[in-house]
Amino acid sequence: MRKLAIIGIGLIKWGELWEKSMRQIAAEAVFKCLEDAGTDRIDTMTIGNMSGGLFNGQEHLSSLIPDHMGRKNIPAMRIESACASGGMAVRTACLEVASGFSDYAIAVGVEKMTDISGNEATYALATAADQDYEAFHGVTFPGLYAMMAKAHMDRYGTTREQLSSVVIKNHYNGSLNPNAQFPFKITGDQVLKSPMVSDPLRLLDCSPITDGAAAVMITTLEEAKKLKKQPVFISGIGHASDSIALSSRKDILKLEAVELSTNTALKMAGKSIKDIDFAEVHDCFSIAEIMILEALGVVAPGEGGKASSDGLTGLDGDFPVNPSGGLKSKGHPVGATGVAQICEAVTQLRGDAGERQLENIRTGLTQNMGGSAGSSVVHILEVI
Amino acid sequence: MRKLAIIGIGLIKWGELWEKSMRQIAAEAVFKCLEDAGTDRIDTMTIGNMSGGLFNGQEHLSSLIPDHMGRKNIPAMRIESACASGGMAVRTACLEVASGFSDYAIAVGVEKMTDISGNEATYALATAADQDYEAFHGVTFPGLYAMMAKAHMDRYGTTREQLSSVVIKNHYNGSLNPNAQFPFKITGDQVLKSPMVSDPLRLLDCSPITDGAAAVMITTLEEAKKLKKQPVFISGIGHASDSIALSSRKDILKLEAVELSTNTALKMAGKSIKDIDFAEVHDCFSIAEIMILEALGVVAPGEGGKASSDGLTGLDGDFPVNPSGGLKSKGHPVGATGVAQICEAVTQLRGDAGERQLENIRTGLTQNMGGSAGSSVVHILEVI
Repeated sequence: MRKLAIIGIGLIKWGELWEKSMRQIAAEAVFKCLEDAGTDRIDTMTIGNMSGGLFNGQEHLSSLIPDHMGRKNIPAMRIESACASGGMAVRTACLEVASGFSDYAIAVGVEKMTDISGNEATYALATAADQDYEAFHGVTFPGLYAMMAKAHMDRYGTTREQLSSVVIKNHYNGSLNPNAQFPFKITGDQVLKSPMVSDPLRLLDCSPITDGAAAVMITTLEEAKKLKKQPVFISGIGHASDSIALSSRKDILKLEAVELSTNTALKMAGKSIKDIDFAEVHDCFSIAEIMILEALGVVAPGEGGKASSDGLTGLDGDFPVNPSGGLKSKGHPVGATGVAQICEAVTQLRGDAGERQLENIRTGLTQNMGGSAGSSVVHILEVI
Repeated sequence: MRKLAIIGIGLIKWGELWEKSMRQIAAEAVFKCLEDAGTDRIDTMTIGNMSGGLFNGQEHLSSLIPDHMGRKNIPAMRIESACASGGMAVRTACLEVASGFSDYAIAVGVEKMTDISGNEATYALATAADQDYEAFHGVTFPGLYAMMAKAHMDRYGTTREQLSSVVIKNHYNGSLNPNAQFPFKITGDQVLKSPMVSDPLRLLDCSPITDGAAAVMITTLEEAKKLKKQPVFISGIGHASDSIALSSRKDILKLEAVELSTNTALKMAGKSIKDIDFAEVHDCFSIAEIMILEALGVVAPGEGGKASSDGLTGLDGDFPVNPSGGLKSKGHPVGATGVAQICEAVTQLRGDAGERQLENIRTGLTQNMGGSAGSSVVHILEVI
């Protein structure tokens, strides 16, 4: 298998981008990525997008996006795995290069979520759950994650303050990220006073609805070394699935897809979680980041809340998590999220993260998941 | 790059399967494929599906389908490229094995289209066109292909009878295929008397709305040779895109994505179109098969109509096309179509096609496209 490297990243400012269309923001991220990579060569393109059909009445982005870029004949495919679509698109671009089918593969993630009503967006997002056994009966994602949060508090004594510590930390990090949708700090008091969405999750426990796009360019490590810019080596990749309905799981506090995808990626990289210096993870809700810390093996089951409130995951902690601000502050355009996580990891590894730059890092991990962790994809990135 | 082979196929009877759900038919096709392959090993799964979101309120099939199979932890991804989703899913399974990420990759295509109204289905299908510049203004796919048919008749003198010859031939072939949705013969008179959908295309020029699924198992050629069943070698793969809106094309009679994907696949296989013995192609409308014959290079531009009515593409013609009955008779569950084309090519190459068996064949080509050929994917299969 050919070794893989990232040679370019492209991110735009995320938010409610009502003046721009889905195709425009995707093309902008691609052009920024090409500029960063110092090449305009694209052999193939993968597109991470959860639901252009429901959000925009637009499937077939494999034709739409190269066309709008003025590169209509680029071979392209869209990859979907709910909110893990972006990470899966990067993984597929890796397959293109690893196999030798392509030498330069670009992955772009995009979601344009704010052009429909909140109810319509909630419906669209709920299609990541089991339609027949969950969504149809009225369960939404805040509801599913609230059940996990309640169970976590009940079994492990996780507290309201521990949930809030995730929010406070991610908004602090996001306040240092100019591309974030909500680049400002939040206090614990603000979290407590925000409206209840699904007990115990309040508005500020939830990641927002966002328009956004992000892109990364993959080539072989050999090819990357010929270029001027420091390449970032992709040493591990893993993905896995779990039952789609929460009710089908023996233990709703065990994120099997996250565990399995992490183990696969670590094995490929020849590493253990102790070798990882920092992570970008899928904090779609405050409780999610706590449970992911446990699933990654950073802390034992039940200790994620305390680790968060003790500062383990802060910018100056022993295992910084979501230096970008995470989904919570940076925003969560679902198909773009997994790609943007990799953009942040590359930015950190290059030493280009400005005020939120981590010190003494060589190895980062990104973890992106769909639904209530019905799917998960992990990448391990290294400077060499 | 590792060489690839198909060791199993799985097809179910297509139609209006109201008594079954999307997850059920997908799992049935997978189980048939595993039985045919003589293994239950699945390292990874790719899923071709155009619009679970709009047809079924269900995205995230990467979690849903392995889960329903009782194999919830299988790593899976959904691939979408409108009606080319199935072929792209097979191509992605090939990437998994070619790269060495997996040894046994299964591709399953599925679409459950008949559980919503005809208007809703027409809307869902139209999301394969340009929403902003085509679909929003009321254009549907019969309309887009009717424009191509009108232009073809105008420029090349293609006749109503030539269009009908495609329909008659494909329904004849489909009458010999027990899995076809409409396994019966059609006369030219029946085509002429069928309701006008979009002039000049009548109801019987159009492929139907279908519930269906299909699966194929890919492994390395080396691994395949260890098994009892005759493997089918995948010698060429190509995919390409074109502008999504018909209005953006210099020439609406030139299917660039089909030409480019065919050329890429032929080059990889080290072959020319003259080396191909038969093809399964994307006859979503009668005019499409005629134009694809030209884009493949089987006949010169403008000669597709005459070649069809002269019998070139019949079961006993020099270049048999759609021995399965094609989308027209076999049905067109959009995400499954590209996978089923490969099932038919394998069935023919194994000599298992019963009454519709072609003689003296060693090499087949499958061509699957999305929208008005905004994307296309081609596979070349050989017995060895």
